[in-house]
Amino acid sequence: MENKLDITKNKFSVIDSVELVTSYLENYQNNKIFKYLDDIHNADIAELLQNLDPVLRLSLLNIIRDRFDPEILTYLNDSLRDEIVETLDIKQLASNAKQLDIDDAVDLVEDLEKEDQNTFLENLEEEERNLIEQGLNYPEDSAGRLMQRKFVSIDQWWNVGQAIDYLRGNKKKLPEDFYDIYLIDKDRKVEGVVPLGRLMGSKRNVKLSSLKNKELRAIEINTDQEEVAYQFSKYGLVSAPVIDEQKKILGSITVDDVVDVIEEEREEDILKLGGVGHTDIYNSVVDTTKSRISWLIVNLMTAVVASIVIGLFEAAIEKVVALAILMPIVASMGANAGTQTLTVAVRALAVKELTTSNALKIITKETLIGGINGIIFAVIISLVSIYWFQDFMLGVIIGLAMVLNLILAGFAGTIIPLALEKMKIDPALASAVILTTITDVFGFLSFLGLATLFLI
Amino acid sequence: MENKLDITKNKFSVIDSVELVTSYLENYQNNKIFKYLDDIHNADIAELLQNLDPVLRLSLLNIIRDRFDPEILTYLNDSLRDEIVETLDIKQLASNAKQLDIDDAVDLVEDLEKEDQNTFLENLEEEERNLIEQGLNYPEDSAGRLMQRKFVSIDQWWNVGQAIDYLRGNKKKLPEDFYDIYLIDKDRKVEGVVPLGRLMGSKRNVKLSSLKNKELRAIEINTDQEEVAYQFSKYGLVSAPVIDEQKKILGSITVDDVVDVIEEEREEDILKLGGVGHTDIYNSVVDTTKSRISWLIVNLMTAVVASIVIGLFEAAIEKVVALAILMPIVASMGANAGTQTLTVAVRALAVKELTTSNALKIITKETLIGGINGIIFAVIISLVSIYWFQDFMLGVIIGLAMVLNLILAGFAGTIIPLALEKMKIDPALASAVILTTITDVFGFLSFLGLATLFLI
Repeated sequence: MENKLDITKNKFSVIDSVELVTSYLENYQNNKIFKYLDDIHNADIAELLQNLDPVLRLSLLNIIRDRFDPEILTYLNDSLRDEIVETLDIKQLASNAKQLDIDDAVDLVEDLEKEDQNTFLENLEEEERNLIEQGLNYPEDSAGRLMQRKFVSIDQWWNVGQAIDYLRGNKKKLPEDFYDIYLIDKDRKVEGVVPLGRLMGSKRNVKLSSLKNKELRAIEINTDQEEVAYQFSKYGLVSAPVIDEQKKILGSITVDDVVDVIEEEREEDILKLGGVGHTDIYNSVVDTTKSRISWLIVNLMTAVVASIVIGLFEAAIEKVVALAILMPIVASMGANAGTQTLTVAVRALAVKELTTSNALKIITKETLIGGINGIIFAVIISLVSIYWFQDFMLGVIIGLAMVLNLILAGFAGTIIPLALEKMKIDPALASAVILTTITDVFGFLSFLGLATLFLI
Repeated sequence: MENKLDITKNKFSVIDSVELVTSYLENYQNNKIFKYLDDIHNADIAELLQNLDPVLRLSLLNIIRDRFDPEILTYLNDSLRDEIVETLDIKQLASNAKQLDIDDAVDLVEDLEKEDQNTFLENLEEEERNLIEQGLNYPEDSAGRLMQRKFVSIDQWWNVGQAIDYLRGNKKKLPEDFYDIYLIDKDRKVEGVVPLGRLMGSKRNVKLSSLKNKELRAIEINTDQEEVAYQFSKYGLVSAPVIDEQKKILGSITVDDVVDVIEEEREEDILKLGGVGHTDIYNSVVDTTKSRISWLIVNLMTAVVASIVIGLFEAAIEKVVALAILMPIVASMGANAGTQTLTVAVRALAVKELTTSNALKIITKETLIGGINGIIFAVIISLVSIYWFQDFMLGVIIGLAMVLNLILAGFAGTIIPLALEKMKIDPALASAVILTTITDVFGFLSFLGLATLFLI
């Protein structure tokens, strides 16, 4: 058997793929399309669909709809997935879903609209339907949703030979891929995990219990997926048994699903810090506009608040127009320094490096750093301002405002995410807007306020 | 054998751990410390060290230095790792390093100072030293640095029985954990990958070549780790062979190392977007201040540029002080809308959703969204301004400036990261500062410029 695709010589390139399929479509070479799609991974088909011209995408979908593998949907972005599901026949999709892992099926079904969900489930075989419905009963983003229902559990008192014979005799019941076997007692309670590699290297008469990992790292069914990812990443797990409150085994989570979770969670953090919700570049113009508008409204309100603060000092600005020219610098530096601190703090919270046990130390440190940077930039901006406007006092005032605002930025940049975390609000989501409001308002207030006191 | 640690009942809690070890240290109960550290995972010991009071950390290190497992260092943050290595005896560390995987050892040695590196290497056994030195010869962040040197490669013409007998007979040569076996030809060229689970479920006389994965996903030795992570995540790989240009096998990369890379790369993106370089909360005040200062300098320069633009309109502001009050709103909304677009674009570039094939479409879409949001917020801010300052023309002008700046924000938010990517500059690093400079400068320019033309 030859390798169909050898990535070392013939790595999948989405640009080549789009070009090739476009030419097949334009020349009505359907057989070539089928052959080509057969040769590439479903993840590559998903990438191809995402990059095809929308009209060609529709033609391609019409050609392959009868044999469309639902697994492709699990690799697609949410918005394109919705769009593609709408063009497919749900009944047909369900009958093509026999090969689908239960965790992937749950992932697929949970995002379908209610009506489509019912059609899909009705057209599955009973066993599969029951498993999927069970999966849907677990809380969203929990270990229960993430887990595989096929796994290998073996009596803890067996030896290596018995285990191998059992696996050979039950080939059909085995999951497509597995890396560990779970040892259970007579009540199906998990007692240990044996990595396959260790099993393979041992003689037939060796007891399984002597091969098990020193520590048993089982996941409770209701654990949040973020915590699951944290455990996998921290301890370098490849799979872990999922258990109920009585320690009875219910399923298995494998690392490939966890990798998806890690990417998802990190992306969410990046998007939230950037003031965008759950979104991707395939969303429609209307959906995207809607999703962005709420943060822009918040930002408009905070900007108006800052303007109101400036408005308080109308008289001062009228007398010394240099104040209007210089004031954005203080605000901008505060926002920038604060965002630096904030980013580090949000990340440290996410990876559990920032905890209540070291919070005070970190707050002190960041405030101190704010002060040091404040002094450095105060000197620079003072000199610039004195030279620019030939006004010594103006330079002193902007320098003072700079120090104060950068100290506040360091303090607020740490305390805001900590406070939000305490209040069970996602720090990645709201920290930035609160911070820049504070540094803007205080930047204008301190600079214009000091100017009113000492300059006018 | 009882499980030493059952996470379902007795999950590792860093707060409890710190408390426990602190009390042991204060009561000089060294034996209890040894016993406790023996029971927990090296990753937990690392977490404990990170959260201990610095003075107690030093006491703990002095107690355990003779038997300090170098693997603990691989779980520590860079800055704390450096600090701890300084307090340890490098010779002792090297003699404790026998159990360390070669990839972890390479990871550890590459960060040591030159002198310590030599001491460490000199005190290793020859075979280990050679492997580590080979690893260090591969480029930083490449597959060569990441790979394990122990892996299981088997003649492609063998059957299941031969493979199992080989594994049992060579137990000592096997890696601690492995999930796939690699089929090779007589020149050690990789011909296929067989997952262990599939091997286990097959009878002894089955040919290995009939069990191999449809696709062979091998990694070339010089591949960047980010690309390695992308392949693992896209195709759900658990391990992959690493090969040279002749396809000959050199090593193996396993998913646990890739998970670390994914976390590292995502974190880097978050930190870069926030204007902070490679840093963590354990860095000293001086190091942190230094690392932040460069972006603050850039920001100061861009803020001064924006102020110079404002300065051009000094006369206008003197006449209509409302301009000074309102102008930050236009700039702030532009920066905010632009950052939203930018965040989505940088993320889409990282996960290869934004490519040259759809760049034009996305730029058009984002500019359009900018226009729509621009119109919406123009209407709001116009009404607010007219009511606030009782000046119809001022409202029209700020509205116009808002539309123009938000269109530019949408356009620049997509084109900047794309252009940087084309120029081989990391878009996460420099996009934000370029964007906000553009939206600030253009925000002030358009608002004050239009006011000068039509209001004064």
